[in-house]
Amino acid sequence: MEFKPGRIFLLRVPEGEDLLYFVNRFAEEKGIKTAIVKGIGSLRNPVVGYYSEETRGYKRIELVGTFELLTLLGNVSIKDGRPFAHLHVTLGNASGDVFGGHLMRGEVFVAELYVQELLGEPLVRKERGNNLSLWDEEPL
Amino acid sequence: MEFKPGRIFLLRVPEGEDLLYFVNRFAEEKGIKTAIVKGIGSLRNPVVGYYSEETRGYKRIELVGTFELLTLLGNVSIKDGRPFAHLHVTLGNASGDVFGGHLMRGEVFVAELYVQELLGEPLVRKERGNNLSLWDEEPL
Amino acid sequence: MEFKPGRIFLLRVPEGEDLLYFVNRFAEEKGIKTAIVKGIGSLRNPVVGYYSEETRGYKRIELVGTFELLTLLGNVSIKDGRPFAHLHVTLGNASGDVFGGHLMRGEVFVAELYVQELLGEPLVRKERGNNLSLWDEEPL
Repeated sequence: MEFKPGRIFLLRVPEGEDLLYFVNRFAEEKGIKTAIVKGIGSLRNPVVGYYSEETRGYKRIELVGTFELLTLLGNVSIKDGRPFAHLHVTLGNASGDVFGGHLMRGEVFVAELYVQELLGEPLVRKERGNNLSLWDEEPL
Repeated sequence: MEFKPGRIFLLRVPEGEDLLYFVNRFAEEKGIKTAIVKGIGSLRNPVVGYYSEETRGYKRIELVGTFELLTLLGNVSIKDGRPFAHLHVTLGNASGDVFGGHLMRGEVFVAELYVQELLGEPLVRKERGNNLSLWDEEPL
Repeated sequence: MEFKPGRIFLLRVPEGEDLLYFVNRFAEEKGIKTAIVKGIGSLRNPVVGYYSEETRGYKRIELVGTFELLTLLGNVSIKDGRPFAHLHVTLGNASGDVFGGHLMRGEVFVAELYVQELLGEPLVRKERGNNLSLWDEEPL
């Protein structure tokens, strides 16, 4: 699917916000239907998910402490008629070891967030029978 | 090298595709010479490379199972007259541990792919005598 | 804060440069006040930081050897009247293990660097009483 560039935002998320919840609210309040999201910072007690093809569900991985947010990468598209953020993270601890997964929760200590809105026919997430809401595939 | 923005694509790669091969074919079919590539998703049995300065070659690292694709990051430029994708990945397992390297292979379970085409004088990869094909350096 | 897109650069950083120092000099020489920075490549003996909320300072993590640069992600904004790069990295070793943190030092073996300039009211970093220089928060 092809898009045109829309608005660009670069901002610091307030300390104490839940990062995923903030991005969803941000998209809702700004009227963003499609976007690319990126960021760096530091998160407290992040919870990430690993999707298992066997159980057809997400395993929750609860990390304790404050982690460097090395990458926040993902997108906003439409699910159930509303903007929905799908975000993956990598996180570094005090030894430089890295953990990560599908972002479920995480309190912002610092988050420098970049949002590039995209304009065009919205991408819509639909349940695929495996507890995953995905866009239609686009074959070449 | 300075570029102007070209077309923007955001799409779901079909399940079962090899991600690297798909990006190369995508660039070829769309006539993309230069681009930035990003994505998230989930890959099966990814193979990544580590370039060793000592052996002047890539060591293959074969990962078994399905991994969260936490970051796909790289570019498309020209090698041997054709578009060529250079992509690095980070990958998370069911414990939240992260692995990664230079993407060699990986079957798509889910891949949400973003391609930002860049317009300008193409960057060309040339063999540098160490089994690496690189653009010319740009000193300040 | 909302921005308009400015110049786009994609280039290979010369081998032997310190990556963080190069990005700062690049921004200074090009007159860039705000930007998004991304890249991949390979770094020698990178040093990364972990910010501790307890000690209110960065712990230095010195990595030895050459690492795949899996993600370079961050931004340029204004600190003390000059452009200042804030960059996080993830790094892979010969086993595919991944390490990372706030980029402090790292000699470029290969670095393919993407800089997207942003035009608008500059974001300014100010000391927050905890040895962190941060932009003002932007509540929703």
